[in-house]
Amino acid sequence: DTKLGIGPTIENGFYYDFLFKKPISPEVLPELEKLMREFISGKLEFKGKAVSPAEAKKVFSAGGGSAFGGKNQPFKLDLIKEFVKGKKKLTIYETRTPKTYNLKPITYFVDLCRGGHVKNTKEIDPQAFKLTHLAGAYWRGDEKNPMLTRIYGAAFNTKKELEEHLHMQEEAKKRDHRKLGQDLDLFVFRDEVGPGLPLFTEKGATVIREMERFIIDEEIRRGYRHVRTPDLARVRLYEISGHYPYYKDTMYPVMQVDEDKLVLRPMTCPHHFMLYSAKPHSYKELPLRIAEVAKLYRYEKSGELTGLMRVRSFCLADSHIFCTKEQTAEEIKKVIELIDYAVGQFGLVKGRDYAYRLSLGDPKNKKKYYNDPKGWREGEETLRQVLKSMRAPFDETKDEAAFYGPKIDVQMKNIAGKEETAFTVQYDFCLPARFKLKYINSKGKEEQPIVVHRASIGALERTMALLIEKYAGAFPLWLSPVQAQVLPVSEKFEKYARDIFEMIRGQGIRVEISDSNETLGKRIRQAEMQKIPYILVVGEKEEKNGTVNVRQRGPADTKAMAGKQEGET
Amino acid sequence: DTKLGIGPTIENGFYYDFLFKKPISPEVLPELEKLMREFISGKLEFKGKAVSPAEAKKVFSAGGGSAFGGKNQPFKLDLIKEFVKGKKKLTIYETRTPKTYNLKPITYFVDLCRGGHVKNTKEIDPQAFKLTHLAGAYWRGDEKNPMLTRIYGAAFNTKKELEEHLHMQEEAKKRDHRKLGQDLDLFVFRDEVGPGLPLFTEKGATVIREMERFIIDEEIRRGYRHVRTPDLARVRLYEISGHYPYYKDTMYPVMQVDEDKLVLRPMTCPHHFMLYSAKPHSYKELPLRIAEVAKLYRYEKSGELTGLMRVRSFCLADSHIFCTKEQTAEEIKKVIELIDYAVGQFGLVKGRDYAYRLSLGDPKNKKKYYNDPKGWREGEETLRQVLKSMRAPFDETKDEAAFYGPKIDVQMKNIAGKEETAFTVQYDFCLPARFKLKYINSKGKEEQPIVVHRASIGALERTMALLIEKYAGAFPLWLSPVQAQVLPVSEKFEKYARDIFEMIRGQGIRVEISDSNETLGKRIRQAEMQKIPYILVVGEKEEKNGTVNVRQRGPADTKAMAGKQEGET
Repeated sequence: DTKLGIGPTIENGFYYDFLFKKPISPEVLPELEKLMREFISGKLEFKGKAVSPAEAKKVFSAGGGSAFGGKNQPFKLDLIKEFVKGKKKLTIYETRTPKTYNLKPITYFVDLCRGGHVKNTKEIDPQAFKLTHLAGAYWRGDEKNPMLTRIYGAAFNTKKELEEHLHMQEEAKKRDHRKLGQDLDLFVFRDEVGPGLPLFTEKGATVIREMERFIIDEEIRRGYRHVRTPDLARVRLYEISGHYPYYKDTMYPVMQVDEDKLVLRPMTCPHHFMLYSAKPHSYKELPLRIAEVAKLYRYEKSGELTGLMRVRSFCLADSHIFCTKEQTAEEIKKVIELIDYAVGQFGLVKGRDYAYRLSLGDPKNKKKYYNDPKGWREGEETLRQVLKSMRAPFDETKDEAAFYGPKIDVQMKNIAGKEETAFTVQYDFCLPARFKLKYINSKGKEEQPIVVHRASIGALERTMALLIEKYAGAFPLWLSPVQAQVLPVSEKFEKYARDIFEMIRGQGIRVEISDSNETLGKRIRQAEMQKIPYILVVGEKEEKNGTVNVRQRGPADTKAMAGKQEGET
Repeated sequence: DTKLGIGPTIENGFYYDFLFKKPISPEVLPELEKLMREFISGKLEFKGKAVSPAEAKKVFSAGGGSAFGGKNQPFKLDLIKEFVKGKKKLTIYETRTPKTYNLKPITYFVDLCRGGHVKNTKEIDPQAFKLTHLAGAYWRGDEKNPMLTRIYGAAFNTKKELEEHLHMQEEAKKRDHRKLGQDLDLFVFRDEVGPGLPLFTEKGATVIREMERFIIDEEIRRGYRHVRTPDLARVRLYEISGHYPYYKDTMYPVMQVDEDKLVLRPMTCPHHFMLYSAKPHSYKELPLRIAEVAKLYRYEKSGELTGLMRVRSFCLADSHIFCTKEQTAEEIKKVIELIDYAVGQFGLVKGRDYAYRLSLGDPKNKKKYYNDPKGWREGEETLRQVLKSMRAPFDETKDEAAFYGPKIDVQMKNIAGKEETAFTVQYDFCLPARFKLKYINSKGKEEQPIVVHRASIGALERTMALLIEKYAGAFPLWLSPVQAQVLPVSEKFEKYARDIFEMIRGQGIRVEISDSNETLGKRIRQAEMQKIPYILVVGEKEEKNGTVNVRQRGPADTKAMAGKQEGET
């Protein structure tokens, strides 16, 4: 009586939608797998053939054939109607059941299928697939249609690949920063505050603060000028920049107060331009690198909010470099070097953890991109040459630029293997014109600078989420919220433990003391679960010798972290 | 023909409003002073007498007496009408002109005056007053009335007091942080961004950043837990706290997006309460000191905005200490100690630069203050006892508390001598109840904590403004945007200067290099004007010996700074 829906292949496997007369539970999946393996061992052939709409309808209608899969299949009939409308060709695939097969009286299986099929089940490694889970799915995704049961499966060429995939899925679940954020007490969300607005606890705030101080100090060392500008401005500022029409959908609503229309900023650029244009500049001052860890506000739809990855307010390590056209290539090179250095401190390795992408505009799309073909050509060529001269591996992608110019994206893979843009370096010849930015060149004439927009370590919240997942919460030492824990084996050594604690704390190390009444074993496990890099156990021997017994964060953790730890300082 | 308005005494002097037939310019003020001194030397007597409304009207009407000051004085007639309506007694004062007086034919002066007059001009020190400036003022402050000319004067008992006052006024003008902020390139305002929203340049941002890092590190050392919470929240959060009705007028407008009503926060407390109540707490965790340098938003009227003193967005070094009632006194004492230490690092001295004020509620005003007489009594007594036990000098003021409890204000005098509240320590028994905050006491029962709200170094922008004015821009070394400048005496020594510059920069000192083409003298003057603490001059002798010639920020600057510098580290 089961009605069949659709069953396409998806990344890493497949699914199939069924309408069961009696609901099934995930416990039956292993049984189904067993049955599938029996089919596979039967070396069954699949035969496809093109059919006319009338033939197809006959097969799947109430008066149709007696094959399993055929006869009285309303969803298939629905599909046939759709295909006929779209003038698509119809194909069906059949397979005979094996002789040893114990599900009489069905002798063959028929399905409406576009094809791209194995010829024989013997091509399939019976150990290289697994039914993973069930989910509800409306027929054709429409909630007015019946709800079907979707059976998901993972499938690979070899057992090894399947196992690696399942392990990675398991890891991704364990490393989900939303789960770890809670387990490690890094941040919380509260309904009274609102979705997409994380509250960082002491521990989470420590990680963000360390990141922020690190990048500010490093950038200042490299000649950046760190400023502080307001998180909001008159709407006019974003009308001048052109952000208002382009970003309006993700901007917060305008606040009208007295004579003023104010809006929370989605971007820092206009504020930095206001600082630049507050006084005249000579070519001698260029390149002028204005930087800020700036709070930005973008109103993401609630369905798109994901932990710290997609939030409604975040801190961007932002900068705008005002330079002459001749200085641009060298400045972009220096930015790439800064990014390589900074993410290196996080333990990320170029090529393995991240790669560059050159994101180009589209000369035909004059609505989406600022219209200045020469400007685009120059910008794209500058970026390309920098990447080539640095022998940095990179791809080129069309139609991924900012509206005001081409950019280099730093692409990172998250723990589930999905690639995302983490940071960007943008070449801008458009906004300097809109804001009438100028400098006096060596001949005493006014000229327009190029602006390089760049995010060195991106949005701190998002980068923190990436690091949580990469390290399963075991941050590099310098980022660890708690770097060491002093752990007395019993109450008797609490005084000595406190002395050690005070001594270490005085060195500016983030240390805590374990003085709970739990057993030693339980307390060590708790400290390990909290991913504390150093546990300093003190007992009779240690007190007598004035030492501590150091337990470094275990290889069990570090093994799972694939090469990390180099970034520790 | 001159018509007289009113002429009251004001702080440090007086003014008088006149309607002149022909406008006067400030150049005549010295002549008027000379005339006044002649009057004084005439030893003129003043005689006051009560008069009936009819008598008074007669004196000042068109057909009135021939005295200077009387006859055809419409503003006086207007005042008489008003006084009769208000059933006030009328008095007039007369004085004869001296025989030597050369302004015939007027023989006496009469004025409608409430009194509190010298009996004789000989009581006045002719060298102890000065006419300072002119201003326009509408009669009775109403722009529908005629505009009068207001002559301002400063007046003291002695010449010395007058001179001190004028000197302080002069200093205040020179030290105005808005002027110095521009001269020293610390911050700018831009029309496109909006009033009350300062943009800090590299130099200004450095001062703010140093203040922020200093207080965060110091608070962490003292057991505070620094967190990071969003700058906005659902309106509901402020309805729960009760801020919404109380602070609605200065809050930014609500932003309605999709299903959400969001508002920029005017206060940090509700966010910290949301962190506290995100998990259960035991009495063992108390006192729990949640702290944050938090961005706050208050919509001040544009007429009230003053440089960095009154802005529309600022960073408050805020904290909320959750503690048992028994711990409150000790916690407040520790807060006062922290404030003393922190402002000491800014070079401020208790008693000289700041004092405490105990700000109490008003048990009769149940609308303005949370109604819990016992809570108020306990809170007020706790604060009073702490101040007494610390032998801290303090005043008590009624009706200056927060709506949720009494507070200790740290009162500072600004450079013009005006007292302002810089930081506060508040005792709160109301909000913990509204937010149903709890902890489990030693008997396993739920109990409500007391919350101490406190701002250790206040709003960073405002404290920076106070420091600019106190030090006339010559910040203590650790806060100076540029701590040293290397100054080669000529082009020949630029290479050596650069070596010195790099060496010092490598030590993490904020140093710049002077390599302009100006003369040596001009460059030294520029560096001094920029209040750079150390100027390192290098020439032939220095290069040969591998030394620098140190010019420390001069005593001329420091003399004007009244005792500062102790705070340097």
